Formats: sequence, C-alpha cells, structure tokens
Amino acid sequence: MLAEIITIGDEILIGQIVDTNSAWIATKLNENGVRIKQITSVSDEKEHILEALHAAAKRADLIIITGGLGPTNDDITKKTLAGYFNVGFKRDEGALEDVKRIFAANNRPLIAINEQQADVPENCIVLRNKNGTAPGMWFEDQSKIYVSLPGVPFEMMYLIEEEVIPRVNAFFQLSAIVHHTILTAGLGESFLAEAIAPIENKLPAHIKLAYLPKLGQVRLRLSAYGGNKDLLKAEVQQFVDEIVALIPEYVVISEDKPLEKAVLDILSEKNLKLSVAESCTGGYLSHLFTQHSGSSAVFLGGAVTYSNELKEKMLGVKTETLAKFGAVSEETVIEMAQGAVHNFASDYAIAISGIAGPHGGTDDKPVGTVWVAVSGKSKTITQKYKFPGRRVQNIERAAINSIILLLKLVREEYA
Amino acid sequence: MLAEIITIGDEILIGQIVDTNSAWIATKLNENGVRIKQITSVSDEKEHILEALHAAAKRADLIIITGGLGPTNDDITKKTLAGYFNVGFKRDEGALEDVKRIFAANNRPLIAINEQQADVPENCIVLRNKNGTAPGMWFEDQSKIYVSLPGVPFEMMYLIEEEVIPRVNAFFQLSAIVHHTILTAGLGESFLAEAIAPIENKLPAHIKLAYLPKLGQVRLRLSAYGGNKDLLKAEVQQFVDEIVALIPEYVVISEDKPLEKAVLDILSEKNLKLSVAESCTGGYLSHLFTQHSGSSAVFLGGAVTYSNELKEKMLGVKTETLAKFGAVSEETVIEMAQGAVHNFASDYAIAISGIAGPHGGTDDKPVGTVWVAVSGKSKTITQKYKFPGRRVQNIERAAINSIILLLKLVREEYA
Repeated sequence: MLAEIITIGDEILIGQIVDTNSAWIATKLNENGVRIKQITSVSDEKEHILEALHAAAKRADLIIITGGLGPTNDDITKKTLAGYFNVGFKRDEGALEDVKRIFAANNRPLIAINEQQADVPENCIVLRNKNGTAPGMWFEDQSKIYVSLPGVPFEMMYLIEEEVIPRVNAFFQLSAIVHHTILTAGLGESFLAEAIAPIENKLPAHIKLAYLPKLGQVRLRLSAYGGNKDLLKAEVQQFVDEIVALIPEYVVISEDKPLEKAVLDILSEKNLKLSVAESCTGGYLSHLFTQHSGSSAVFLGGAVTYSNELKEKMLGVKTETLAKFGAVSEETVIEMAQGAVHNFASDYAIAISGIAGPHGGTDDKPVGTVWVAVSGKSKTITQKYKFPGRRVQNIERAAINSIILLLKLVREEYA
Repeated sequence: MLAEIITIGDEILIGQIVDTNSAWIATKLNENGVRIKQITSVSDEKEHILEALHAAAKRADLIIITGGLGPTNDDITKKTLAGYFNVGFKRDEGALEDVKRIFAANNRPLIAINEQQADVPENCIVLRNKNGTAPGMWFEDQSKIYVSLPGVPFEMMYLIEEEVIPRVNAFFQLSAIVHHTILTAGLGESFLAEAIAPIENKLPAHIKLAYLPKLGQVRLRLSAYGGNKDLLKAEVQQFVDEIVALIPEYVVISEDKPLEKAVLDILSEKNLKLSVAESCTGGYLSHLFTQHSGSSAVFLGGAVTYSNELKEKMLGVKTETLAKFGAVSEETVIEMAQGAVHNFASDYAIAISGIAGPHGGTDDKPVGTVWVAVSGKSKTITQKYKFPGRRVQNIERAAINSIILLLKLVREEYA
C-alpha cells in the first residue's frame, strides 16, 4: 500500500524550517507496512494544494497532509479540502470542546476565530486533538483516505500514533516492510560495493540494498517487502550476518539503531559510566547521548570547555600543555579525557578539541582539524582527524567519530 | 522566477534521514531572489523520477535535483537524466581528474566504477566537485535549467554557492525577495492576529504576512516580492517597526536572526561572558550557542550535570538542597546558576533542570516540568515551565525559553 505526504506552508519553501515531520511520519508508516511514494512540500496557495492533492491521489491510496490549520488568514488547508471534496462546513462539537478546554486551561478568553477552529468539512471524521486547537481530519473518498493534521510536531505525532495508525491498520490490508541498517566506517562506497557484491548479486527481488554515505561513514540498508513480517525479518537478518562476516573490520554497528544509542546500550549492559570533555563540539556530543531516554543510566555529564581557562579549571589541563602544544593537540585532549575520568568519576571519557571553523584555522592546523582522546580502564587512545566540511558538519563528524573511537576502546577492553 | 527542488533517494521516504538539504538550498535561492514553488522527494525509481521532472518543468524554470549520484547500483539519477533529455553519455576529463585526485589523496586505487563517475549525459556542463567524486551537472533545455547535485550536504553546499548561484544569476533576470521574521512569545497565534490586524489589513499585495508557531513562540514573517531590493527592505522594515510598536511586550527579537544568535550578539557588544549549567537539556543549550561561528567571544562553556554528584562537584549545589527539594526545583537551579557564574567566572549563567521524559515524572513533578534560573549582575531570576511535549521537544523548549529568560534579565540590567 502506498502513501504520500503533503506538507503545506511557505516556511518550508523559503527554508525557514526544516521539514522534520515528514521523516517522522514516514518512519511510523513504514513500521506499519505503508510505503511512502512521495513527499511534497507546497505553498499556502489554493490552486497549488489542489494540484498536489490530485497528483498524489493518482499515485497513492493514503494521503497525509500536514500544516495550514491555524486560525489565521494564511492557513487555507481546510477551505481547500472542502473545495477538493466539494462539500460545505459543519461545526464539530467534540472539536469545539477541545478548543474551549485548551483556552480555559490557559485562562484565555475565546474569540470568534478560535471557535471557527471547530468548523470542519462536512465529509470528515474529526480526530480529536488533545494538545492543540486544530482538530485532525480523516476523509474517505473514492476508496482513498486523506488525513489532514496540524503541522505542530507534538500535536501531529500524537494524532498519528493514537488516531491515524490504528485507523489505517483497520482500513487497509497492509503488507509487511522490514528495514535493517548496518553502520560501516573506513571503506568508501565503491569499495564496499565491490566487497559485498557476492551478496548484493544474490539478493532476491523483494530485498533491496542501498548505500547511504553520511559524515564519513556509509550505512548499508536492506529493505524487504511483502509477506510475513517475521519471516522477512529472519531473511534480512541472514543477509545482515553474511555482510558482517564479509567485512567485519569495517562494521561499526550491525544492529539497527543510532550509533550513540548502541554505545549507550553496550555501556549500560556492562554497568559502565561515561563522561565527556567537549571543546569544539560545544555540547553536541552530550546532546547526542542525552536525547535518548534512559541515557542517565550511563551518561554522568561533562564539561563544555570553550575557553582555555575552563579546560584548566574543570578538567585539570596544565597551563604549560596549553601554552606549549595549544588547545588543539594530542597532549591537550589526553589531559582533558583523563581529567574527565578523574574529576567526574566515570569509567570512560571522550575528549574533543578542534577547529570547527570557519575562522581560527592556521597553516599548521587548518579548519577541520580535530583531536579526539578516549580514556578507559587501561589506557587513553587518541586520533587526529581532518574534516573537509563546514562548521556544523565538522561538529557532527567530530562527535560521531569520537563515539566510534570510544566503541573501539570499549570493545578492546571488554571483548 | 520559480524553482523546484527534487530530492532523490529512498532514505528520505522511509524516514531514515531528514531532508535538511532542501531547506538550505531554499534559503540560498531565496536570498538570490528565486522563489521555491515545490519541494518533492521521490524514490530511486526511474519512472517516478521522470514523472517528477516533467511535473516540475511545467511549474518552474529552474529545477534542482539532489541525490542518486553515487557509484553504486541504487543510484540512477544520471541514467534517468540522460533518458529524460534523450542523449548519450560522454566522459568528462575535468570530472575524471577530480575523481583521480580524490583517490590519490586518500591513497586508494581507482576501480572501474569510480572512473564511471566521470561519465555524464552529453548535453550537460560539468560543475566540478572539489570535495567528492560525483560531479555536479548543469543542463539547459527548452529555456529551462536543470541542475543535478550530489546529496552529500557539504558537496552540495559548495556547488550551490560556487557554481550554481553565479550561473543562475547570469542566466535569469531575477526579481528581489525580502523576508523578515519577528520572534514573539507570550501571545497565541489568534490573539497576535487580532492585535496586529490593523497592520495586516493594510499590507500591500506584494507583502505577505505568515504566522509560524513553534515550541511555544510565534514567529511573524513578512515576505515582500518584486522590484528594487533596497526599497523592499525599507518598506518591510517600516511594517516591522509598526508591528513592534503595537505589541512591544510580546516581541522577543525583531531582528531577523535566530534567538540564540541575537543574544550572543547583544552580549558580545557589551563584552559580557556567558556560561551554562545544564541538566535535562544535556548539552543542547550549549550546542545552540556554539553552532554559531564567533560564539567563543561570549560563551565560555559550562557543565552538563546529569548526575546529582556532578551538580555538587561542578556547580557547588549543596547536598542538603538536592535532598530537601530535589534536582528539579527552584532552589537547585538557583544554586546551579550561581555556581556557574562563580566557578566559570562569567557575567551571566543559565541553569536548567527538569524532567524531559518519557520516564521520571511524578504526580508532583510530571514529565515536562522544567525549572530555569538565570544569574546576572544584580540578581538571579527563575521561572517554572510545564511543557506538553515529548523528550526532544521538551529539551528544545527548555533551551529556547531559558534563552528568553536570559534576554529578559540582560535587558533589565543593561537597559
């Protein structure tokens, strides 16, 4: 079964916001056996929205529309949908109740345009929104389902999980989809392809292999379609095992989870604690870990030491080390990592210092130069990197590579 | 002049990656007076890509295509474009040079499928890629321009800035676009709309107003199209001033920059230093600041204290305070903020402690409860929040609101 996502709103088209909703919806639908055929972002213009609806309806059976449901003049999704289905409006008592409840909870008076939030096209079933004033809407038309949801992420997420997925499962006969991703590092896309060609060439037609290069790593994604989900999973796992067996030295994580989550899980199993000492990554590494629920079982915290003074004060880096070798040096990151293990009483610590750019580079240490140290049970290991990117990409690459280095030492020390 | 962006790759459609490229490209094109009509994400399937190309060519004059240029079997953009234009392939010597250079720099042998990276459709002009092996391609066909770029962000970014934007400016007669965003807090979308209706109602047809609610704030975006860019800017600025004058108490930042960047600039002007003490935001607040180049002039660093032990050790929070009031309390965040100012020798410090969720909530302190303290020249101010979202949204809201609280104290102390 195919679905499409249409996001409505000029803010995406002018680049003011990144469309994170679509990836989230795609993940949820995929988990439930729905393939996304296309994601389309269109402007707040009636004719353009209508064109996108007609085009999507030709390709897909389920069309999820987000955005454009606010009370203000620039929000025209509801009017446009009523026009598309050629129906009038009705006031929905449930939706009106939700609007009133939210205004009452915030001690705000209700004004007319807020009440209009409860007016919906006649042919829809209202999906009640507990977290906001714009109701979700479910339309059935010529055997196709259209769902209109608010663009505010947590309102949309709640409605997808609580209302849309159960109804989609009930309405359609869904076939299974299984994805599995292997994270590799150290081998370029074309070499990987050569190395695993024997497996790629024998994949059955219902299993696809994709190469996803990102920030210096390549993820291999196997996607299997159709039939029984458990059998598909077992089939995919067999190919995963064969790939790992062919290139064991390049496989970072063969489980299908984010790298930092995999590392947290490994440390948690062994009851090991982690702290960090971040300079150029400026909190991003900590954020990678702490975005995951349960990270507090492993991650104690750490120091974001942008200034040299704080490197000395919080981590015990010696003034002489900074003076002699500079903040971006092997000597400094070693002291940072060892200082973190000592001061924060953790089993492992990651330290990162580098030049994220765009300024601060020298001939000797150009922008993108990053030193990482990982301190563990028996020793401290280091690695120097030279990343080619811009500031934010350099920060991301430094963080990801430091986690790979941590994983290496943990595996060595707890084989 | 209208453009469309087509991103190719199953990884977006299954939700494995968020499409950040499109927002970046949209921003750059907008700055140069190109409006994006639609952003379309399609799968790695020839027929689907062709359909998207034909549809985009009906609406737009410039079509930017990203992704699907790797050397492996799942990458079919080049073949599909050759089919679309009905042309054969040529080997491009410049592109081959780039491939060879990159392999030589990495000390890797060149294999046949890498050389094929230099094979391009006959009718294209190669945009040489200094950072990767897939060349960019520029096609002119029936007065429309098609540009195909690698999906790897920093390769794409380089090509857009160095190759695509200059060529687009030379090829098209571009009309000006000016956007200006005002960040507001404390007033819901519908009340804002009521409050500024007198201005919205008198906006000329070439200036549009949009309401963008996000994480508890509402951004107001004015977009003006056509004519002379400087005149447009002046015209937009006049409406910005009128809006600010109508609702001064709700305007956080009337300059068109990210909140944290605006705060960094204010502190930098006054030569004030900032540190942070983060618990539930786990490094995200530090990352918000340090993602910006030049942040080191203001941001000294800080402590990510996930554990109570580190709150005591790094920030000097008293054991009794934690025992009596808990880690998520006004008393604790006050000591965290004051400890940061003292230990890290900053003028201002933000402290955040809360329950990001999904676990750890109690009847008394449910998930989403967050305490923030800001310590400054003359005093420490605090604020309690109850956010309705999920973990990552709660982290984002806590960080953003803590910056608004900082701004409030800075403005009060340095009026």
